[in-house]
Amino acid sequence: MSNKLDQAREQLARANRMIANEGVLDAFGHVTMRHPTDPGRYLMSRSRGPELVQPEDNHQFTLDSEIVKPIDARLYGERVIHGEIYKARPEVNAVCHHHAPSILPFCISGMELKPVYHLGATIGEKAPFWDGRDDFGDTNLIVAKPEEGASLARALGPYWMVLMRRHGATVAGTTLEELTFRTIYTARNAAMQIQAHLLGTVSPLTAVETELASEYNLRPGPVARAWEYWSVRLDKAEGAHRAAKPSRRANKRSKPKRGRTR
Amino acid sequence: MSNKLDQAREQLARANRMIANEGVLDAFGHVTMRHPTDPGRYLMSRSRGPELVQPEDNHQFTLDSEIVKPIDARLYGERVIHGEIYKARPEVNAVCHHHAPSILPFCISGMELKPVYHLGATIGEKAPFWDGRDDFGDTNLIVAKPEEGASLARALGPYWMVLMRRHGATVAGTTLEELTFRTIYTARNAAMQIQAHLLGTVSPLTAVETELASEYNLRPGPVARAWEYWSVRLDKAEGAHRAAKPSRRANKRSKPKRGRTR
Amino acid sequence: MSNKLDQAREQLARANRMIANEGVLDAFGHVTMRHPTDPGRYLMSRSRGPELVQPEDNHQFTLDSEIVKPIDARLYGERVIHGEIYKARPEVNAVCHHHAPSILPFCISGMELKPVYHLGATIGEKAPFWDGRDDFGDTNLIVAKPEEGASLARALGPYWMVLMRRHGATVAGTTLEELTFRTIYTARNAAMQIQAHLLGTVSPLTAVETELASEYNLRPGPVARAWEYWSVRLDKAEGAHRAAKPSRRANKRSKPKRGRTR
Amino acid sequence: MSNKLDQAREQLARANRMIANEGVLDAFGHVTMRHPTDPGRYLMSRSRGPELVQPEDNHQFTLDSEIVKPIDARLYGERVIHGEIYKARPEVNAVCHHHAPSILPFCISGMELKPVYHLGATIGEKAPFWDGRDDFGDTNLIVAKPEEGASLARALGPYWMVLMRRHGATVAGTTLEELTFRTIYTARNAAMQIQAHLLGTVSPLTAVETELASEYNLRPGPVARAWEYWSVRLDKAEGAHRAAKPSRRANKRSKPKRGRTR
Repeated sequence: MSNKLDQAREQLARANRMIANEGVLDAFGHVTMRHPTDPGRYLMSRSRGPELVQPEDNHQFTLDSEIVKPIDARLYGERVIHGEIYKARPEVNAVCHHHAPSILPFCISGMELKPVYHLGATIGEKAPFWDGRDDFGDTNLIVAKPEEGASLARALGPYWMVLMRRHGATVAGTTLEELTFRTIYTARNAAMQIQAHLLGTVSPLTAVETELASEYNLRPGPVARAWEYWSVRLDKAEGAHRAAKPSRRANKRSKPKRGRTR
Repeated sequence: MSNKLDQAREQLARANRMIANEGVLDAFGHVTMRHPTDPGRYLMSRSRGPELVQPEDNHQFTLDSEIVKPIDARLYGERVIHGEIYKARPEVNAVCHHHAPSILPFCISGMELKPVYHLGATIGEKAPFWDGRDDFGDTNLIVAKPEEGASLARALGPYWMVLMRRHGATVAGTTLEELTFRTIYTARNAAMQIQAHLLGTVSPLTAVETELASEYNLRPGPVARAWEYWSVRLDKAEGAHRAAKPSRRANKRSKPKRGRTR
Repeated sequence: MSNKLDQAREQLARANRMIANEGVLDAFGHVTMRHPTDPGRYLMSRSRGPELVQPEDNHQFTLDSEIVKPIDARLYGERVIHGEIYKARPEVNAVCHHHAPSILPFCISGMELKPVYHLGATIGEKAPFWDGRDDFGDTNLIVAKPEEGASLARALGPYWMVLMRRHGATVAGTTLEELTFRTIYTARNAAMQIQAHLLGTVSPLTAVETELASEYNLRPGPVARAWEYWSVRLDKAEGAHRAAKPSRRANKRSKPKRGRTR
Repeated sequence: MSNKLDQAREQLARANRMIANEGVLDAFGHVTMRHPTDPGRYLMSRSRGPELVQPEDNHQFTLDSEIVKPIDARLYGERVIHGEIYKARPEVNAVCHHHAPSILPFCISGMELKPVYHLGATIGEKAPFWDGRDDFGDTNLIVAKPEEGASLARALGPYWMVLMRRHGATVAGTTLEELTFRTIYTARNAAMQIQAHLLGTVSPLTAVETELASEYNLRPGPVARAWEYWSVRLDKAEGAHRAAKPSRRANKRSKPKRGRTR
């Protein structure tokens, strides 16, 4: 078990750094995952820029977002975003909260985010829009109280991504790998939608296309392929590339079966 | 012959990594080339991000997109895009399928992609628009069945680039070097067309200008010059630059003749 | 005291390089801070691109913007921007003058810069607009004379950021770390506002939200977290990352207290 | 004399690589300078991507754009752009021809490029617009014949930058350093003008402001400061930074005088 936990903390640190390296996270935002063997807990870094998160920064939290073993370091203020979603959605095992430059224009203008290409279909049927002011009036916009987290989780409902008015987005996944894929490709989709909007009429995927394309792209094969890509890019950016060139072994984790495609 | 094949696999791997390094490919998309001595086969990587493709990842496929010697690794799902174009167009020796951020806005809005500067003239006379829904209704948007590949190849017709509705583009070339040139410069042209559209009226090249500029820029000289440039940039990005500075030898492959210009 | 001064010169050099590394400063612009023990002086580099500033480049100036110990090197021409603001605003301890690509469009079009997300709330209540032509007619746009600096300082008034017509912006902070945070996040906010404008109606934060979010984000915790992040990114860009990996010690300066959040 | 020539070839190679490193040049385009001691000749690289140009690539050409000592390597096709401008404008000592992504939208849409901030004032009074079709009808858009170069030089007239319809721009300077400054900052100005256009009304500098700001920024001090900055950035990008950290000596070339500013 301790082995599984070590591995989870290692992967979670990589996911934080990978998503930051792709420009979706900056000094703020966070990626978490449910504890690999105890569904009543989740793993989250102490407060620091996600691009800097190391395995040992990841600590255990209860679903009420209390740290299990108190530490002598600052914690993220918006833990309840994660805790309340894990509570409400047992099938969710990873969550990312971010302020990506391509997503914010939607949060500011109220324009609806739509899947505009197959990889953006991972948005799912709909990305609901949450305005904390509806429930709580004028605040500092930070989602720090349990009731604020619960309100956001209700807005997310059965979907996979929720836009937060003048703040950012929160994305969920059934696995850390799926979450990483959805987080990055929904941000890419948003950038393309803005550019398409500038050219004229945006024609999004149909509901059926969205469902089929999302299903197709979230299979283990494409998800592992994207993870390997972002992982090698991270290694390059960190200068770890030259010292230890990514070997085929890096790919072994998800042993591919012969004859499967894409 | 084995030597020619080794060289082809090496160049194909570089083309994949170069086009990715220029931001046209990301975790998805693929570059292939026709087998250097057997026109009934083509070379394609096993399934992985194109930025990671190594020479030994490139395997042989029949034009029906079946692997010649089955391997114990995942294959790309959209092989038929390549196979069906090689079948339909004997003069095509290299194909790239991608989802470049500057091209997608055209695939989403339906705006016509036009050559707006001499290097973009490599689009050719026209970049037709293919909507898989016309033939196949709602799908996952992936071109995986032979009939889907054949439909796309028909849409490409005698042209060199086809836009795919809410999906991406497929580009063809008579050589791998020409393909690389066309793939990157059509993506650059698209970005410029969007910006020009924002400023006012887009005034594209005339048909005659397009033909003349395309012919001029696709001569061996300009194509080799661009290849060398992207190749050195790739070496820098991979950290291979410092170890082995690009010497003049790198340029020898296409021995320049005295007095020729540009 | 000499120790405090050395530390200040070191931090000021880092702030110059960090803000440049984030794309807000280029060959021009400058960051200064008030002398750590003598409020009648400020520290500023000799004239060079801020990305190149080293601790020993930082010299002492009186609030009349005269160098204390003359040196054999070129000085910045726009020193009075800093000196006049330090004179007018005793609580200001750091100033940045820049020409960020995302801010200039506001300076050129006259569009009002508004806080559009919580991190942009650091703009404060308002970013006034200064047009030197009102007081001085046609000039070379450079703020080099004491009366020009004083005019700009009056336009800034009690606020934290002033836009300068067809020129750039000047940002103030109570500490160097706060200034760095405000400078970078107001530039990010500007980029998001432009994109949101393209999508439709820009809906900014309310006055109360702005006040609360600014207060929240400028606490020592978030400010130190962002500083660490930009600092590590600078180390990576300078190649210092591999030689000396950022240890936890880098974070010690602002010893976090247990139980505090975000 | 041979020493002056060696130095010129070295500086010219750096200017090519610096301008490319700043994203203004890609695989195509070129920077040249007049021979340092023989005004009837100019120096230009053999045909290769400007980012790759080394000192020994630079050869001598007559003002009729014939190479002085024929070499066994491909030459640029558009030499006459440079030769004809050196003929027509004795005070011009450096020329850059490029296809920068921020400039092309103006060449495509016909929108007038205007100085919108002090550094962009280096455009000068006006950037005329040349359409080769007026004199030569439909061509491949390449300026390769002496009469085409002469036509372009006439369009440039007494100005410092000429936009070329659906092709790019040509920029001139009295020194290589001034040319580098004007080339990069006019491209930056163009990007800002596009963004300002998106926000509403573009309000450019007045004629007097343009003249004063251009004069101010093209003095040796600012020009040397920008050159040092781009030069160090190039060293970083080429990995030469770590081996040989830029010392103060790098700055000595243009010995600053005490008391001079900016």
